[in-house]
Amino acid sequence: MKPAVIFRPDRKQEVVLVHFELSRTLTPEDLAGLAPPDLVQLGCAHLGVILSGRGPIWLYGFLIHYYHPCSYVAIYDPRLQGGIVVASHKPGCEPGDLIPYQTVNSQ
Amino acid sequence: MKPAVIFRPDRKQEVVLVHFELSRTLTPEDLAGLAPPDLVQLGCAHLGVILSGRGPIWLYGFLIHYYHPCSYVAIYDPRLQGGIVVASHKPGCEPGDLIPYQTVNSQ
Repeated sequence: MKPAVIFRPDRKQEVVLVHFELSRTLTPEDLAGLAPPDLVQLGCAHLGVILSGRGPIWLYGFLIHYYHPCSYVAIYDPRLQGGIVVASHKPGCEPGDLIPYQTVNSQ
Repeated sequence: MKPAVIFRPDRKQEVVLVHFELSRTLTPEDLAGLAPPDLVQLGCAHLGVILSGRGPIWLYGFLIHYYHPCSYVAIYDPRLQGGIVVASHKPGCEPGDLIPYQTVNSQ
């Protein structure tokens, strides 16, 4: 069965853009079965994460918490062509900072 | 000056609904100046939090991280009349669980 959420990670230097697409309408019960790229297991928790995709706020909420061990978590804003930091352990990287990231679509 | 985001916390038993309203269009720089109700300082980190309001995903992201020390964090869904848990330290309370919460508007 096709997963409810398909994740497409794309790394550039010290940041991973985690883009997601929904294969159907999500229900809250789907959160228990998600399998986002596990950066901790991959030894990549020192990287920053930018989340990108169309989905409910609670999906974003789940992913923000999931990537909490990473250097920082940002939300992609296509208008600003980058991620807006919402949480950070990285010195000098604060909520509200913009992490520039050019996606394939914006090139 | 009026704050960019006005928070209206509402407690019922062991959960606080943190509703917010924007007084103007937010920019990422606004995140640095936000003053959400500080449940840790109030000795209320043992409570759960339900976030509610219309705003950008990165505002939600900031608030989810901000309330990370609390028992759990959920996102209000008016259709389901409750909060959908996205992060939890509480045994038996998992992402995807619905925390029923009747707001004034839905009564």
